[in-house]
Parts: sequence; structure tokens; C-alpha cells
Amino acid sequence: MEQFLAQAKASAQVVASLDNTTKKRILNEMADALVAGTKKIIAENKKDLKYARENKLESAMIDRLMLDEKRIGGMAQSLREIAMLKDPVGRVIEGWVNDDNLRIEKVAVPIGVVATIYESRPNVTSDVGALCFKSGNVAILKGGKEAQHSNAAIAAILQDVLGANGLPVEIISLLPDSSREGVAKLITMDRYVDLIIPRGGEALIRYISQNSSVPVVKHDKGLCHTYIHSAADLDMAVEIAINAKCQRPGVCNAMETLLVDRAIASHALPRLYAAFNEEETQMWGDSEVQEIIEVELATDKHYDTEWLANILNIRIVADIDEAIAHITRFGSGHSEAIITGDYAASEKFLNTVDAACVYVNASTRFTDGGAFGFGAEVGISTNKLHARGPMGINELTTYKFKIYGSGQVRG
Amino acid sequence: MEQFLAQAKASAQVVASLDNTTKKRILNEMADALVAGTKKIIAENKKDLKYARENKLESAMIDRLMLDEKRIGGMAQSLREIAMLKDPVGRVIEGWVNDDNLRIEKVAVPIGVVATIYESRPNVTSDVGALCFKSGNVAILKGGKEAQHSNAAIAAILQDVLGANGLPVEIISLLPDSSREGVAKLITMDRYVDLIIPRGGEALIRYISQNSSVPVVKHDKGLCHTYIHSAADLDMAVEIAINAKCQRPGVCNAMETLLVDRAIASHALPRLYAAFNEEETQMWGDSEVQEIIEVELATDKHYDTEWLANILNIRIVADIDEAIAHITRFGSGHSEAIITGDYAASEKFLNTVDAACVYVNASTRFTDGGAFGFGAEVGISTNKLHARGPMGINELTTYKFKIYGSGQVRG
Repeated sequence: MEQFLAQAKASAQVVASLDNTTKKRILNEMADALVAGTKKIIAENKKDLKYARENKLESAMIDRLMLDEKRIGGMAQSLREIAMLKDPVGRVIEGWVNDDNLRIEKVAVPIGVVATIYESRPNVTSDVGALCFKSGNVAILKGGKEAQHSNAAIAAILQDVLGANGLPVEIISLLPDSSREGVAKLITMDRYVDLIIPRGGEALIRYISQNSSVPVVKHDKGLCHTYIHSAADLDMAVEIAINAKCQRPGVCNAMETLLVDRAIASHALPRLYAAFNEEETQMWGDSEVQEIIEVELATDKHYDTEWLANILNIRIVADIDEAIAHITRFGSGHSEAIITGDYAASEKFLNTVDAACVYVNASTRFTDGGAFGFGAEVGISTNKLHARGPMGINELTTYKFKIYGSGQVRG
Repeated sequence: MEQFLAQAKASAQVVASLDNTTKKRILNEMADALVAGTKKIIAENKKDLKYARENKLESAMIDRLMLDEKRIGGMAQSLREIAMLKDPVGRVIEGWVNDDNLRIEKVAVPIGVVATIYESRPNVTSDVGALCFKSGNVAILKGGKEAQHSNAAIAAILQDVLGANGLPVEIISLLPDSSREGVAKLITMDRYVDLIIPRGGEALIRYISQNSSVPVVKHDKGLCHTYIHSAADLDMAVEIAINAKCQRPGVCNAMETLLVDRAIASHALPRLYAAFNEEETQMWGDSEVQEIIEVELATDKHYDTEWLANILNIRIVADIDEAIAHITRFGSGHSEAIITGDYAASEKFLNTVDAACVYVNASTRFTDGGAFGFGAEVGISTNKLHARGPMGINELTTYKFKIYGSGQVRG
């Protein structure tokens, strides 16, 4: 393992110095190679599917695992889109001349070696590999056991393209030891690894955050709220609430809890209730909510649950302060929305709520690299530092200062 | 400890929401209070000095510890300067309208609770306290045992001003348990603490980086190089080399190793030797250097040493590639300089060397928040992520996305 990581680190300088035209060409070659390797990938994927069925994995998981011609075409298309993104390396983030007449530039550079830990979907292998490559980083990929054959086939195809271009294959590679012990070792290798991105299970993310000496950017829980303020346009509020909960309930930017101002509860809740009933949403509410609509009693445990399903908590609040207090207590700092026509309420919510994304009059479902216009997404960071919220290729860079002098010495 | 940290976390929202006029006024009040409390601070400082002398601490350390009227005046002046800095909170870092016509703003916000661990100089207590306050963060300060009375006196004065303004005193406070066990506990408290900034001993920094579940921005080793390229202006090269090594040898941005191109070594080294001799610099060199000037033999161990003293390693290199290879192997990623009149060499050095600050034709001694124009400095980060290089108040902020909608839902 250590030898592998040392090689990965050594190849970081190679990928960091590639120009954008070269990176673009190679990414398009990778896309072609994936399409050309469709049969091979599907054959390997069948082994994973067989294992999944034998081990009675959930059907949703098996669906995420499955690759066919269309999905492999989608993976190739994603690489072509990543190829077309503007090079994140070399951006001048800031620049100025200091009092000593030194010209100082803060310039984006690759991070180095980025290890990503993920589950199920084999397309993450090519997506994250390509995002790291485009941003000049070495990608170390650790997928789930359930997708091992598919991931190996995809990585081998990408590596063939690297090799054919005279580049070290370590630039995109699977972690050689993908056991628990392998991951435990990886997260202590701060001499070789610059960043760990864990995506997937909460327990895994917690374990890595607690034990890693390598910096970690987490992509975990989204316990999101929508707060319907007394000055909300109710038509808009209902539409946004339905979208935030039901359009895709299993994702981290979906709403889990709806907060409604007491002043409008008696006429807002019946309308919301009817709309959610049409979507067959299971609803929980506090005792005050129960006086207005027929829902089961919600406790703190419910308000603390990321359902990731078509289930909704409802709570009546006295005012915006109580709404913000609820969000501060139960929110995960991911995405929070207020629906209001009131200027002061919108300002207060935007400024006070401590979350990666705070919305006025829109669905939390927009928290997404694609929707933000980043092109492709590494994930949605729940860290506060380095990257927060949707993380695109720019967030796979750090910076250095370039200082242009003409003989200056310090006085 | 946990109760203290919970209070600190709770007061984060208070300091985060203060406007700049209020922060400015309070910082100026703190400056006045420090001056008014001069006698009290000096009396407490005397206890630390007594302890230091009794325990035979080095005279340099005792000097750093000592506070007199002038130094306390300097601390007050520093607070007044921090007060005048532009508010780092609320800066719109980026802003755009996405394809759904959502207006998205990436806005600087405070990090939250920032714990700083430092040694000796008691002025760090007021400086870092003020920098955190100005950037809307709660400051938890853990100074050295040797300065405990001075730090307590300074913190008490700042807290009195907070209290008189109706603010929670936890906004600037000393870690209640400053023992080893206290620090060990602190670095696991990621529920309450958002960032740890260790300054000081390499062993301490290593320990914290390895064991902290709270994100860490390190401020440690500076093993800096100056590379005199064959196309250098030799007068400039000598002046810069002397400045980088001798102007203040005990700091992290001072040069430790001088690399000289073989093509110019025979006439450059004697001139450098004469100049460094005048500064009474102790010199080590490889065997090839020894053929030209009279120095002791340097080994890899020397090249790997941050002297922090008027001692210099010298090495002859074949060309820029060998210079960069040496820097890659021995450098600490802090500050590296090339002296050259050649455009291609300068570009290659700037783009290839992986360090926080890379210089052309200037002394590495400029790596400093003040010299960069940041106003005041939290330290110099040797991290790659979040903050790299000189760290001012802007680097004490993170960001959130504010999204302004008009009823948008995701399709």
C-alpha cells in the first residue's frame, strides 16, 4: 500500500503539469474507450449483479449497480462534458501589487492526491476519476465491494488510455487494498494523500472524520427544512414544499421537515395536507398540527431523522425566531429555505441560518453542482472549511501565491 | 470543559451577527482598556517572568515573554489597526444567475468557534482574540504555561469590555483546562469547535494533526530555499540571499538552503562566501562546494534541517531541474525563490514548485500577512486546504450560498 501511495504521489506532478488541450483530448479518448469497452464492462458488471442477487441486496441497490449500453453511454457523455469544462488550474483568484512593489498573484493549483470513498454506482469511478484528472489531481478510488468487478473494468479502461498517452497509470487508480484495514491505513497516510472525500454511509463518514490525519471533506447528511413564513404566497409555498419533499425523496437536498407559522397554520395546513396526500406522503406533526390535520404525532426523534423517503415532519412555529431555533437545533447545515414575501424576514433568514445553502422562495432541491452551473459535481460538502455545499472541479483545487519581484529584500 | 465549549458554540451566533461599526467600536474600547490596565498586566507578567527565571528558561524566551509599557502600547495599537480593517464578513466572493433564474451569491461568513494553541508571546492573546472577533468568530485561546498569568490578565481585560457591551464573555476566552489532557479533549470536540490553529512546537503540531477530529490549519515548519539560476544578476542574488538568511534567521520564512547553478558556481560562491562571512553565517556545503569555498561538509541531514539560526546549507545543482528536485525532496512547501533573468526559468519555477509562496527575484522573507498587505496575520499556514500561506482575517471566514428565488421548483 505505501509503495502504491508513494507512486501516486510521484505522479501528481505529472498530471498537475498537463495543459488543458491535452487533458481535453485524453478525456475524450477515455469516453471513446468506455463506449468501445461496453461489452467487457457489462460482462464484469454481471459478476457484481450475480453477487448482489446471491447476497440478497436491496432491489434499489441492484438497480444502482446495473450497467447497460445506455448507462455506459451516459458515463462516456459525462466524460465529454467534463472535458469541455474550463480548466480550473491556473485561474488567478486574486492579484495585487504590495507596498514593496511585489506583484502577488493567488493562483489555483491542483490539490495533489485525492482519495474518494464511495458505494454502489460504478459511474462514480469514471466521473470522479475524470473530475480529478481535469483538475490536475491524482485520483485514488475506493468503491464498494458490491461493485468491484465493474469498477475494476472501468478503471482498467481509463488506465489503458493514460498508458497509451505515456502517462503513469497511477493517475487514476483503485485502492489496491479495499478492505476495512486498507481504508484504516489510507487515512493515516498524510505524507502521500492530500484529501479524503468520503461519500456514502454515515457510520463510514463518522469513522473517517474521527480517525483521519488526512484532511477530510465530508458528503453526508442532509436534514433540510422549508419554513413557510406568515407572509408567504401560499400557492408558491405549496408548490415548493411538494417539490422539496416529493420530486426525489431519497436525496440529501430533499426536505425532511416543514415549518409553518402559527398565524397561517389553520388555512395553510389543510391545503398542504391535501397536496401531500395526493403524493401519498406519510406525515407526522406536533400536537398543534394534529388539531388541524390528521397526522401521527411527531417527537424530537422524528425531527432528528433524515427520512430519505416520502415521509414528512410538520411543525407549527410561533415566528421566524422559533423557526430558526428549530433549524439550528435539528438542521444538518445543508440546505434551508424560507418562503416569504417579506423583505426583512428573508434577510434575517439568509443571514442567520448557518447552512451551506440558504434559499428564499425556491426548493432546496437545487443544491446540486449541476443546478448551480458547476457542470459536474464531486459531491455536496457538509464541511465548513475548504469546500462547502456543491463541490465542482474548482473545489478540487487549492492555491499558491506567485510573487514577481525585481530584487526586493525585506527591510 | 464540555459545558464551556457548548457556551462558546452558543455565543458564536451572537458575535457572527455583530455589524462592523459595533465591532470597530468594541475593538477600540479593548485597546483603551489594555492601556488602562497596563499596571495590572505588568504585575501579572512579573509572576510569569519570575517563574521563567526560576525554571531557567532561555533568555530569548524570557525576552519574548516580557511585557512593558511600550509593548502593551503596541498590543493596543495592533487592536486599533485590526479595528480599521475592512469587515471580512459579508463579502460577496462570487455571484451569478443560474439557468433556472435563481440568483446565487457565495458570501463570506464566520467559521464559528476557532481554537488557537500558541506559546510564549502574550500579545498573541489580544491579537488572535481581536482577529477572531473582527471576523465574527468565537476565539478559544490556549497559551503556554510560561505565560499563564499574563494571558489571564489580558483575556480578563478583553472580557470586561465584552461584558460591558452586553456580550457573552465566552466570545474571547482562555481554554479552562490548559493541560495536555485539556488539549487532548479539545481536539475531539468537533461538535463545538470548528477549527484548531496550532502554532508553535513541531511535536505539538504533529500530535494535533494526527489526533484531531476538528479541522486543523497548521503553522509549522519553514524549510525555505533560494535558487541562484545561471542567468541571475549576481549583485541582486547576493543581496537577496543575505536578506533571506540573515535579516531575521529565527523565523519560518528565512532561507535554510542556498542552491547555486554549476555554471556560475566558481565565481558566484566566492562572492556569496565573502558576504555571508561578513554576517558571521555558519556555512555547510556539499563536496563540490568545498572545492570552491571553505565550508564544512553538508549531508542530507543538514539539508533536512530548519536551522532557525544564522546557519546556511549550500549545494551546487546541475540545472533548474535538479534545483526543483532538491526542493521537492527537502522543502516544506512554505516559501521558495529563484533568482534569474531568464523568462522560461522563472515560469518553470513558478509553475512547478509546490509551495505556498513561490518567488522570482525577491527574498522569501516577504511571506507574511503584513508584507502581503493583509493588515494583520493569524499565522502562515502550511496546510494545502482552506488557507495556504499568510493567513489574514479573510482566511478566518468560510462561505455560504445565498439563493434568491421567485418560486422555482426543480423539474
